[in-house]
Amino acid sequence: MAYHHGALRPALLDAAETLLEEAGPDGLSLRAIARAAGVSHAAPAHHFGDLRGLLTALATEGFTRFGAALEAAAAGSADPLRDLGRAYVRFARVHPGLFQLMFRSPLLQGEDAALRAAMAGSFGTLARIAAAAPPGPAGRAAHPIGSWCLVHGFAMLLLDGRLPAEPGPDALLEAVLGSGS
Amino acid sequence: MAYHHGALRPALLDAAETLLEEAGPDGLSLRAIARAAGVSHAAPAHHFGDLRGLLTALATEGFTRFGAALEAAAAGSADPLRDLGRAYVRFARVHPGLFQLMFRSPLLQGEDAALRAAMAGSFGTLARIAAAAPPGPAGRAAHPIGSWCLVHGFAMLLLDGRLPAEPGPDALLEAVLGSGS
Repeated sequence: MAYHHGALRPALLDAAETLLEEAGPDGLSLRAIARAAGVSHAAPAHHFGDLRGLLTALATEGFTRFGAALEAAAAGSADPLRDLGRAYVRFARVHPGLFQLMFRSPLLQGEDAALRAAMAGSFGTLARIAAAAPPGPAGRAAHPIGSWCLVHGFAMLLLDGRLPAEPGPDALLEAVLGSGS
Repeated sequence: MAYHHGALRPALLDAAETLLEEAGPDGLSLRAIARAAGVSHAAPAHHFGDLRGLLTALATEGFTRFGAALEAAAAGSADPLRDLGRAYVRFARVHPGLFQLMFRSPLLQGEDAALRAAMAGSFGTLARIAAAAPPGPAGRAAHPIGSWCLVHGFAMLLLDGRLPAEPGPDALLEAVLGSGS
């Protein structure tokens, strides 16, 4: 397949994300990603160096999208903290492979500057919205980091299959986020 | 090394846990565990079948110890929910490899009956203590599962190096658990 100048990099990231969601991190290799994108097997190394570099770029893009999703969920919301929590868990459910790569992967270059900046950006969005939200019912954490821990713990326990099956993730999340304002 | 009848199984689990904490799950193999325990390399397979069987037994034992630690922390406490949260995070910090094996590992036999029972036991302890705790300050989750998500999210973000370095994990946990009763 021929790509316009500048289009190969996003095509490789797209292919990597699709493979990650379909088969998990164990199946990922530069060669498999090149094959899925329909390009020469030298192309990923040329753009990203190695697999760690490619996954770091994918996680960086993930944090940027994550921050934008949180921002969009809270913008104009009558209950920004609740909508932030819903958007956080929704992102984890829709992109479980990407979310786990972003948060728990030993496969990333943890000190990469672009990754650090994207991560700080999305966490900053989260902290700003949580700190600005009006005090809520007792279900709301007193500390902005507590709101983060609450929804992160929910997302992780859900992805790891540890939450009770009843009453289902949507109803359980609403209960955990408090009884509404 | 010669073990008395019945002592080989716990010795193998001890060796596996030590290797897990020292080198992470990637370095684990039945052969490495046998070597660390100083026994024949056929011994682990005889007792556990395969590596997945051994890790499932280790996680099962982990959930039993975890439940006992939560129970002990809350027993006779003037503030059981806070002490439960502290004990939860302490277990994760002291046994990070074991905690991650218990909660996130695709290496376990998820349907193993002993594992399911030990997991249900520790989650039951958690739910019972959280449900019985008096209503706390605004920092306390309204729903018992919310208390779990809060401390689980804290533990995971801490182990994954995602929490801010300041003011340090102990002070941050106290802030997240609320301003005290």
